[in-house]
Amino acid sequence: MADSPNCDLKSLSPLQLFERVTEQGEKVRALKAGKAPKDEIDAAVRMLLSLKLSYKTTTGQDYQAGLPPKDLVLINNGTTKEEDEDLVDPWNVQTSNAKGVDYDKLIVRFGSSKIDTDLINRIERAIGQKPHHFLRRGIFFSHRDMDQILDAYENKKPFYLYTGRGPSSQAMHVGHLIPFLFTKWLQEVFDVPLVIQLTDDEKYLWKDMTVEKAYEYARENAKDIIACGFDINKTFIFSDLDYLGTSAGFYRNIVKVQKHVTFNQVKGIFGFTDSDCIGKISFPAIQAAPSFSSSFPQIFNGKENIQCLIPCAIDQDPYFRMTRDVAPRIGQPKPALLHSVFFPALQGAQTKMSASDPNSSIFLTDTPKQIKTKINKHAFSGGRDTIEEHRKYGGNCDVDVSIMYLTFFLEDDDRLEQLKQAYTSGELLTGELKKVLIETMQPLVAAHQERRKQVTDEIVKQFMTPRKLAFEF
Amino acid sequence: MADSPNCDLKSLSPLQLFERVTEQGEKVRALKAGKAPKDEIDAAVRMLLSLKLSYKTTTGQDYQAGLPPKDLVLINNGTTKEEDEDLVDPWNVQTSNAKGVDYDKLIVRFGSSKIDTDLINRIERAIGQKPHHFLRRGIFFSHRDMDQILDAYENKKPFYLYTGRGPSSQAMHVGHLIPFLFTKWLQEVFDVPLVIQLTDDEKYLWKDMTVEKAYEYARENAKDIIACGFDINKTFIFSDLDYLGTSAGFYRNIVKVQKHVTFNQVKGIFGFTDSDCIGKISFPAIQAAPSFSSSFPQIFNGKENIQCLIPCAIDQDPYFRMTRDVAPRIGQPKPALLHSVFFPALQGAQTKMSASDPNSSIFLTDTPKQIKTKINKHAFSGGRDTIEEHRKYGGNCDVDVSIMYLTFFLEDDDRLEQLKQAYTSGELLTGELKKVLIETMQPLVAAHQERRKQVTDEIVKQFMTPRKLAFEF
Repeated sequence: MADSPNCDLKSLSPLQLFERVTEQGEKVRALKAGKAPKDEIDAAVRMLLSLKLSYKTTTGQDYQAGLPPKDLVLINNGTTKEEDEDLVDPWNVQTSNAKGVDYDKLIVRFGSSKIDTDLINRIERAIGQKPHHFLRRGIFFSHRDMDQILDAYENKKPFYLYTGRGPSSQAMHVGHLIPFLFTKWLQEVFDVPLVIQLTDDEKYLWKDMTVEKAYEYARENAKDIIACGFDINKTFIFSDLDYLGTSAGFYRNIVKVQKHVTFNQVKGIFGFTDSDCIGKISFPAIQAAPSFSSSFPQIFNGKENIQCLIPCAIDQDPYFRMTRDVAPRIGQPKPALLHSVFFPALQGAQTKMSASDPNSSIFLTDTPKQIKTKINKHAFSGGRDTIEEHRKYGGNCDVDVSIMYLTFFLEDDDRLEQLKQAYTSGELLTGELKKVLIETMQPLVAAHQERRKQVTDEIVKQFMTPRKLAFEF
Repeated sequence: MADSPNCDLKSLSPLQLFERVTEQGEKVRALKAGKAPKDEIDAAVRMLLSLKLSYKTTTGQDYQAGLPPKDLVLINNGTTKEEDEDLVDPWNVQTSNAKGVDYDKLIVRFGSSKIDTDLINRIERAIGQKPHHFLRRGIFFSHRDMDQILDAYENKKPFYLYTGRGPSSQAMHVGHLIPFLFTKWLQEVFDVPLVIQLTDDEKYLWKDMTVEKAYEYARENAKDIIACGFDINKTFIFSDLDYLGTSAGFYRNIVKVQKHVTFNQVKGIFGFTDSDCIGKISFPAIQAAPSFSSSFPQIFNGKENIQCLIPCAIDQDPYFRMTRDVAPRIGQPKPALLHSVFFPALQGAQTKMSASDPNSSIFLTDTPKQIKTKINKHAFSGGRDTIEEHRKYGGNCDVDVSIMYLTFFLEDDDRLEQLKQAYTSGELLTGELKKVLIETMQPLVAAHQERRKQVTDEIVKQFMTPRKLAFEF
């Protein structure tokens, strides 16, 4: 692996080439404006044409000013987002559509691939069992390089799972469990190591919060994550604030990523500005580094080339587009990804839920009574205004939040289908549908609370101690 | 200590206030240019006036566009540097004057204080012995808050020393020893703990070098530093690549600094641009963090408030101006500083020496013969063209490199004075003067080489292991 910054054009990533063309274009304009000697202008124009050709050869697209290559499309500064498009980045999810974000459009914009029937069938063949309902129902709907992971699995090559959470408060809601429930299933069917990053440093940098508080939230959130039922022998949970100070490999990968990403790039990808603190600007490297197995020498015996699979909500994709851009330049495999849709707020699918509004979702600490009241009072309904109209025209499952929540949490396919049909036909009333949701969520949350009680500080400490897991590398 | 990013104007640093005024000024101009409604423009102007008033109250100066407050003056982007001024920053030292950089002007520009006779006398009284010739001869010529350190010392309050080196190659020259020789003396007379940072991560980020190579240079350089004679029980040497992965406290301080410094600030202080990698942009926090005792919980028992004194060459001051700006906002004491002049190249004092040009200085690996040849061949002379003229008009000590080197390395004050007088009067010829320098440097380098041979890998490992030192906190 060469770390040379003076590499030739062939070794540049599409985004780097894009920037070189842009810079050269600016140079040509400046020369012309400054009435520079003709031969100087001609030389700069020749270089510009040559750069544009390299760009086209590498990306298969013509260079267009302001339109970076597809795999690293700008998503936050408005230059490529059209007026009616949804806004999706790690800090914002906004849509004006009651059905929620248009995920098919997002796949096109982000340049990822749809999880189609073929891929789901291939997963079923590989693992020899029915895929998780999150896959069957399109909750995990998009991926990058999942085929490579299945190739590796079928050829008995190792891989590992990486997911995470930003511990912004003690209060987690049921939506926060989605990536963890799915990751747990992936770990069980593929039997691979799992690392879970708690970005307490990120929360300290972004929020009005002390380092100590962020770290405390990380440990509290770890309890809820552990309560999902992860295998202590196969799972390593870490707080950045802690692990950065205990791992020889982690910081080295961070600094390698930091060397290969410019401020221009993070400005384009994350919308950072000159007024942002340098901690925010360099943070993306810290979320990138766990994608490389050498960040966990204690688990992978120092091995560098073990492929990583990241299940996460689609809003985290910008971090990993950046990571995938850098990976080959620091001699590491690109991580593969599985993207989930967003979990809707009780009030409707227009926005991602907020942990700071207690009525926006069902929290893991809610009592059965609170769950009942919240659903009855706040769950946005696709039903009609009167019973008569509802019986006559039926309800709208596409915008009904009870149906959405049941799609996440009711495992019985037949029952869900039955409910949808009965609601659409008008046979099932909104109150009855909400009752089903209440009866689904109450035992689910109660069982989580019961398991969480068993998670002692000692167990958290064990999960968070860097150590060898039950795998040989 | 509050970490709030939404703090009111009073809690802003001078530089932050300066930026707020600048931004508000731009806003007013944009509103006027865009023919915004009158009440909107009026409100923006009122805010601008209020910000200007806060700036004046805080800094005691009127706001002047493009002229940041004195303690954080821009030094690298040309906006405040006048045509005939010297260029001094961590990566460049340039002057057109054969006598070297104008240090009195630098003190004014950097806003530091001159080490005057009063301060030197106070140091002498405090330690009860003659101050080091680096102090007496103006080699350490500038300081920040050295009075506070002496107050602490006289009141039996603890402090510690922090210095460092960027390990850019295996080859160190005699000039690299200056901060270490002086730091060793400080440690002996004050009997305090010392931490030495080897910024191998910085070298990886700035140079075309692998992480492994940078780390190897760090350990090799540690041998030369240890050979200066540091007390293993009182000194901790660390590589960033290593120590970041072993210390709970270090990363926490780094992330605290990173939260309180914006890209705008590092752009102003260090001249970074949008094309710089995010590693460079966030690196200043890594050089800042060892200024806080909580970065070394193993030494200071987790104590946060122990004052730090940093002996370094003046080109490193931008890092610590930034650190001093941040310190009170993260509840830490500002580090004090002692600044040295630059060590001149054999070819003359116009530039700082380069480790990549073997003839630019005397290297710690040079043989007696190499030393002799280099001095005779390359040491810039202040002598006259012919013996007759020299006898008649005398030599010029101000530009003569042999005299400069002897000022650093010949400890005998009387002898040095005698040589200067004889050279100025023309009594001493250039060849004779060079002979004195050769005879001074040969045994000095040979003795260093002898001591370095004794420094085994095991000793390096001990110095570089985080541990308690021989002090109680």
